[in-house]
Amino acid sequence: MAKYKPVYMFSDDAEALAKKLEAEGGQLKYLFGGKGANLSIMTAAGLPVPAGFTVTTEQCIEFMKAGHKFPAGLKDEILKCTKKLEKETGKKFGDPTNPLLVSVRSGARESMPGMMDTVLNLGMNDEVAAGMIELTGNERFVWDAYRRFIMMFGDVVMGVDREHFEDCLAQVKKQEGVTEDTDVSAEGLKQVVELEKEVYKSHIGKAFPTKAEDQLLEGVRAVFQSWDNDRAIAYRNLNKIPHEWGTAVNVQTMVFGNMGDDSGTGVAFTRDPATGEKILYGEYLVNAQGEDVVAGTRTPVPISDLEDIDKSCFDEFVAICGRLEKYYKDVQDMEFTIEKGKLFMLQTRNGKRTAAAALKIAVDLHDEGLITAEEAVMLVPPDQLDQVLHPQFDPKQKPEAFVTGVDASPGAAAGKVVFLAADAEAMAEKGERCLLVRHETSPEDIRGMAAAEGILTAFGGKTSHAAVVGRQMGKPCVVGCGDIEIDYKKKQFTAADGTVVKEGDFVSIDGGTGEVMLGDVALGESVIIQGLRGKKAAQSDPLYQYFTRFLSWADEIRHMGVRTNADTPEDSALAIALGAEGIGLTRTEHMFFGEDRILSFRKMILSDTAEERGKIANKELLKHQRKDFRGILKAMDGKPVIIRLLDPPLHEFLPHEKEAVAEVAEATGKTPKEIKDATVALGESNPMLGHRGCRLGVTFPEIYEMQVRAIFEAACDLKKKGFNPIPEVMIPLVSLQGELDICFEYTHRVAEEVMEKKGVEVEYMIGTMIELPRACAVANTLATTAQFFSFGTNDLTQTAFGFSRDDVEGKFFADYINKRVFQISPFETLDAPGVGVFVEMACTRGRETNPDLELGICGEHGGDPQSVEFCHNVGLDYVSCSPLRVPIARLAAAQAQLKSPRQK
Amino acid sequence: MAKYKPVYMFSDDAEALAKKLEAEGGQLKYLFGGKGANLSIMTAAGLPVPAGFTVTTEQCIEFMKAGHKFPAGLKDEILKCTKKLEKETGKKFGDPTNPLLVSVRSGARESMPGMMDTVLNLGMNDEVAAGMIELTGNERFVWDAYRRFIMMFGDVVMGVDREHFEDCLAQVKKQEGVTEDTDVSAEGLKQVVELEKEVYKSHIGKAFPTKAEDQLLEGVRAVFQSWDNDRAIAYRNLNKIPHEWGTAVNVQTMVFGNMGDDSGTGVAFTRDPATGEKILYGEYLVNAQGEDVVAGTRTPVPISDLEDIDKSCFDEFVAICGRLEKYYKDVQDMEFTIEKGKLFMLQTRNGKRTAAAALKIAVDLHDEGLITAEEAVMLVPPDQLDQVLHPQFDPKQKPEAFVTGVDASPGAAAGKVVFLAADAEAMAEKGERCLLVRHETSPEDIRGMAAAEGILTAFGGKTSHAAVVGRQMGKPCVVGCGDIEIDYKKKQFTAADGTVVKEGDFVSIDGGTGEVMLGDVALGESVIIQGLRGKKAAQSDPLYQYFTRFLSWADEIRHMGVRTNADTPEDSALAIALGAEGIGLTRTEHMFFGEDRILSFRKMILSDTAEERGKIANKELLKHQRKDFRGILKAMDGKPVIIRLLDPPLHEFLPHEKEAVAEVAEATGKTPKEIKDATVALGESNPMLGHRGCRLGVTFPEIYEMQVRAIFEAACDLKKKGFNPIPEVMIPLVSLQGELDICFEYTHRVAEEVMEKKGVEVEYMIGTMIELPRACAVANTLATTAQFFSFGTNDLTQTAFGFSRDDVEGKFFADYINKRVFQISPFETLDAPGVGVFVEMACTRGRETNPDLELGICGEHGGDPQSVEFCHNVGLDYVSCSPLRVPIARLAAAQAQLKSPRQK
Repeated sequence: MAKYKPVYMFSDDAEALAKKLEAEGGQLKYLFGGKGANLSIMTAAGLPVPAGFTVTTEQCIEFMKAGHKFPAGLKDEILKCTKKLEKETGKKFGDPTNPLLVSVRSGARESMPGMMDTVLNLGMNDEVAAGMIELTGNERFVWDAYRRFIMMFGDVVMGVDREHFEDCLAQVKKQEGVTEDTDVSAEGLKQVVELEKEVYKSHIGKAFPTKAEDQLLEGVRAVFQSWDNDRAIAYRNLNKIPHEWGTAVNVQTMVFGNMGDDSGTGVAFTRDPATGEKILYGEYLVNAQGEDVVAGTRTPVPISDLEDIDKSCFDEFVAICGRLEKYYKDVQDMEFTIEKGKLFMLQTRNGKRTAAAALKIAVDLHDEGLITAEEAVMLVPPDQLDQVLHPQFDPKQKPEAFVTGVDASPGAAAGKVVFLAADAEAMAEKGERCLLVRHETSPEDIRGMAAAEGILTAFGGKTSHAAVVGRQMGKPCVVGCGDIEIDYKKKQFTAADGTVVKEGDFVSIDGGTGEVMLGDVALGESVIIQGLRGKKAAQSDPLYQYFTRFLSWADEIRHMGVRTNADTPEDSALAIALGAEGIGLTRTEHMFFGEDRILSFRKMILSDTAEERGKIANKELLKHQRKDFRGILKAMDGKPVIIRLLDPPLHEFLPHEKEAVAEVAEATGKTPKEIKDATVALGESNPMLGHRGCRLGVTFPEIYEMQVRAIFEAACDLKKKGFNPIPEVMIPLVSLQGELDICFEYTHRVAEEVMEKKGVEVEYMIGTMIELPRACAVANTLATTAQFFSFGTNDLTQTAFGFSRDDVEGKFFADYINKRVFQISPFETLDAPGVGVFVEMACTRGRETNPDLELGICGEHGGDPQSVEFCHNVGLDYVSCSPLRVPIARLAAAQAQLKSPRQK
Repeated sequence: MAKYKPVYMFSDDAEALAKKLEAEGGQLKYLFGGKGANLSIMTAAGLPVPAGFTVTTEQCIEFMKAGHKFPAGLKDEILKCTKKLEKETGKKFGDPTNPLLVSVRSGARESMPGMMDTVLNLGMNDEVAAGMIELTGNERFVWDAYRRFIMMFGDVVMGVDREHFEDCLAQVKKQEGVTEDTDVSAEGLKQVVELEKEVYKSHIGKAFPTKAEDQLLEGVRAVFQSWDNDRAIAYRNLNKIPHEWGTAVNVQTMVFGNMGDDSGTGVAFTRDPATGEKILYGEYLVNAQGEDVVAGTRTPVPISDLEDIDKSCFDEFVAICGRLEKYYKDVQDMEFTIEKGKLFMLQTRNGKRTAAAALKIAVDLHDEGLITAEEAVMLVPPDQLDQVLHPQFDPKQKPEAFVTGVDASPGAAAGKVVFLAADAEAMAEKGERCLLVRHETSPEDIRGMAAAEGILTAFGGKTSHAAVVGRQMGKPCVVGCGDIEIDYKKKQFTAADGTVVKEGDFVSIDGGTGEVMLGDVALGESVIIQGLRGKKAAQSDPLYQYFTRFLSWADEIRHMGVRTNADTPEDSALAIALGAEGIGLTRTEHMFFGEDRILSFRKMILSDTAEERGKIANKELLKHQRKDFRGILKAMDGKPVIIRLLDPPLHEFLPHEKEAVAEVAEATGKTPKEIKDATVALGESNPMLGHRGCRLGVTFPEIYEMQVRAIFEAACDLKKKGFNPIPEVMIPLVSLQGELDICFEYTHRVAEEVMEKKGVEVEYMIGTMIELPRACAVANTLATTAQFFSFGTNDLTQTAFGFSRDDVEGKFFADYINKRVFQISPFETLDAPGVGVFVEMACTRGRETNPDLELGICGEHGGDPQSVEFCHNVGLDYVSCSPLRVPIARLAAAQAQLKSPRQK
């Protein structure tokens, strides 16, 4: 049941309601949507906002729950507010002498640009049109508005295919012998209105509704329903926006930017969303409505030109920009219209921006005294950092551009050219990189854009759909590249220099410069990583400086440690540069695949006795492992290194190819058939749940003992040389106390043996991975002997759900997401209501018996911001993730601490 | 730390201590072991028990925890009690004029016959021997006792191989030219003593200890240690006796049954342990010690003969039998010795017996007024019922016996003959039935006996090792078959009629008659099942009558329902006869393998579209499924039938053999290669965790919809004919609410559609299997729509542990049990501390949102008594198991209710 009023006027006391909602742990935008909340706030602040009202998100939720039926009382409330609106504006629905026209727009908690429906000019009918002609003396404008309204209403609200309406205009254009919409006569547009009414009637079976109230209610219904259209669902899945939020509906008095040359419409950012530079950034289009700008079909002028066009409006707008940025403490992305020399604010919202811009803006706002370091840290979504850490084109290998477009979303991308969003998806599924090339993109292309490495369009500017979405996704994007001509039929494009690029050809784009190059251009390390590695030139790059300053704030704030998952000294070094405070997971299995050891390892597996196994382990493998561990422990000098003993089932190591089988046969003195038979015998029908992890440690202790010996020999050797190695031995796949007891017994024994023999003491810990549900249930027991728990949430997710990642992700996860069984793969973001229950159980039970128990996570979730927040909330001591995710985890941990502080 | 005194005299106030322990939720035997408790109780009752004391189990536990070291103070306490014993008996350790000799025996909470160590005649040394000769005038007896003591002490306490001592006797026998032990002269035995002392010294490096106190302490240590010998561990694993219990040690004054013809020793049951008949049953051996009877090397006389041998002792013993049975309210199994005409009770315990005897005894004791129905129900271990339900030889096909032995443990068994326990184990592992044939069995053979179908021995009587263990295991056993001569070397035996049976030949035995037959004799249904199916002749069989009366008591007591897992009308009918109150699980996958449908099913799987799939499902498969369900619902008329929709991954249904592939290719118009490719494409690396269960229901709803349609069409048709079908549709492998929502939506829809079309209403429910850990965590949500939960504890165990049953049971479970990682496979008995936590979580959370939620279990654990008790304790409404386990579950549920009553 709704808790709040169903409808609020913009002029209601929004500040008071916002305070009330915040006291309840909510926000105004949860109820009003972002657009509605900001319109109300701007109204309260006395800014020039056309009057209107907001139907709340609660009503949308009720509407959806009731199977797309209006909640009781809503219609009455809307009509009541319509009366108020008439009073506020002095205009009246359906009154030819002073008609009220409104726009009906969606507006969800998070902006979903272009994903949902909008109806403009609602309130039109024949009488109103006649009256408006009388009032404005601008017959062409009125018929144009009318025909647009019928088309939008027919398409958006009633679901009649838009092209039927477009045909009406085309027919009249042909009849009048003109090609441009703007050349059609007033009489022609009037004729289009009549034709469109016919189209409407023939498809719907009823005449076009003339009553404004009926139009309005249907409009609201259409917006509610559009929350559930396919592209909105796809967008939410992509952006992890909950399907349960619903959208608000904003009904606002129309203002017209297309009433002549003293009118116009614009979009602007208070700072450059690509670079973060503090300049007014945007575009203005004279004598136009907003849709003309966003669609990218007419080319607007830079926003700065407005100063020459209408200085008074420009100055007013600049002043408003300043006020809004100060109020929202963030860059604003605004839409406005000038109607006959009067400025109206139609929207403001926090501006989407690139990662580089986000870093600069956060630091600049702080330096300008607008926000604290804490507030600054909250301004950058952690996932976005990925963009600035990812590779850039290697300048030495970068060829000359053959065409150049607008630098809309920075970053380097190379891929095979495709021309359809669906093709991009298909390519990505096959694991191939592709580049989506379009005239312009539209919301239908969302999934294809996500699948492509980058986007190249022939039309549109920096605020076109491709540019906005590209920046938000962190996809490199070059737009408005007028020098290419696309032939969708032939699936190719031709550049001004005559170069023909066909589907499947490799092309590379640099979204930071607008350059488009032929071929698969090689990528180099990002400037930030170069700087972190100590490269002086890179360190003087402003991006590097913003990054390090910003992250230092995050480090001061966060409570949780951040470690890395690394298996080599090289990865370890990179991770340290990126801020890792230790290793949370070193996997030892990859080490055995080295050319110099795989044969020995295979011989060991095929040994007939424990004795023989032990002999091969200690004679042939120990030295290699010791070297592996020495490298990593040295790179991590003074920082803890968790080493997981061998995890995969042994059959994964056995050879399948003829040559390798022959080699192993020779080395072991067995026949190739015996080798194959042994491989089959070791094979498992469900290897995930088979003879692996500590089960090997119990049944073949020789292997683990050798690994433990190698770890401590390496550590002791380093210690003697003045290093400070801190090895932490981790036993995987434990579900039973007995497994831990057996593995711990020899781990401690061998460790003590080695240290005694070497004559040095090394600080070490022994712990276990928690990756099976049963381990969570008996965590209180395990914690009596384990010194640390590290959550292996990949396997914990697999076993809690009964999902084999290999088998299910490709096979039916898409179906599950489409059918809304879940929205995000639980392998991507930790499943808090399910798997999270087990993690929490293990934490609570473990700390019950051992308050000093160290708790961490080493599954891939350790690098996912939402999961990091979960880890913070359940009280983990650290998260561990791949080196490149370390900065993301640092930031996510800081934000988690700010959202829900815990004691250091 | 120990809570109680370390040592108690038999003459301490045992009744008071027992009351105290019971008040604390324990039992006297937990502290004293069974033997110690009963000796104290008998002493308190004034029965003739040789004086002694008991070292408690607590001390053994401390001893083991401390790494086989005596707990502080224990030695002093033992020596203190030795002094008390000297006072009670008037004898003195090491006093030649009146020496105290004692036995040192183990005694655990549950009797573990022959598994642990015993030392007799402790206290002997040269002076004592000389003194005893003086006292008894029986030189031969004294030297015999002495040489036995040295051998036992050397073997049992000090671990010197017994055969070294046996060689001493053999040497003297050779020297004297005799073959029987009893023919060796006194002087010869004295010589054996000297030789044995030499053996001892040469192996131990020190002379044989002469101080009785030293001997005693070492003896106690040896008994403690024997708790952990291999055969004791194996026995406990087999009998699910916790390794943590430890054993008590009983030190008791020796009495001698081998002091002449007025002495002897016997074992007896108060009722016949094979049939339950109320007759004194047992054996007596003149001039012998107990070990002679148990070893089966000399043939004793029936216990009834004692009346002629020594009427006074016999009458006294009969009177004692009556008192003990009345006190313990159960059949007693006793050991006694007559020393020079005086009766001494050495042991009493509840007698192990066959299932048939157990049923008769329980009912008889009740009818005799000794016990209530509730007490009677507690007297039969539920697992034991298996014995009387299992097949018997079909009398029509039973051939003539070629030899006959003693009917020691009833039941029919056929298998290939093996002569070594290890061979029996090996055969069983290969899945082959075998029959173990031995001269006699010993505790070392335990595992082989468990692996064999039955046991045949050439020597020994009804109380020999093979007989006792056989009855306890419920293994058919024929002993003392003197007409066979075994040649272990040739691995064959020869019967009196000249028949030679070689290893690997099939032999059948009837343990109820003692008959041994050649060949693999066919088995027929047990008399109880025949009776339950309505066969009049069987119903007049006393066993049938005892069984039904006994189970009717259990049914009155139990709170939990018992259902069955059945996939056919035939199984359903059998289960109803055995007392099932409904079906807890009908698997539908087997139904598709029928010859008339597998091709259609394969065509459906290989369909390219949902439409085609739906068409094949409804056109070709629906009719078969409808028939399947009609049969089962009819058989279960008026009882609920839970039908689980298709569970396994689809690739399991695709063909692999060439012919089948060709057939499918023809039917689908595809090439054989395409069929094979499709099979590979559908293949999974971990099918257990793959695309199965409700995941099929979400992605291919056509299949489930067809199944639901078939269920409701079948139910409606039956309803119209006057039956009362109660279908309950179960969705498997649910982990997410969305899965349930999707499957429930169409299940309800199709059910309503069919009922409306058919014009009848059918009572039905829709629920889900709970078999994944995540489902337990979100059970509160699932319960908002599910009307019932049924725990699939097989899969829940697999996922909670991360065990693939197929892969791990064969591969390393034996190792896990040997290394004490666990004692019982969690697939056999529900793992209460781990998996049980999830079951309980799901129960609690589910009932939180839906107090009427029906809870049951359909995993194999539903037929395991210990797991049934767990299910009772967490509040399940019913358990479901295979038809033959239904009576076991009924009894187990009744016992669970008696142990821990819950409100009906």
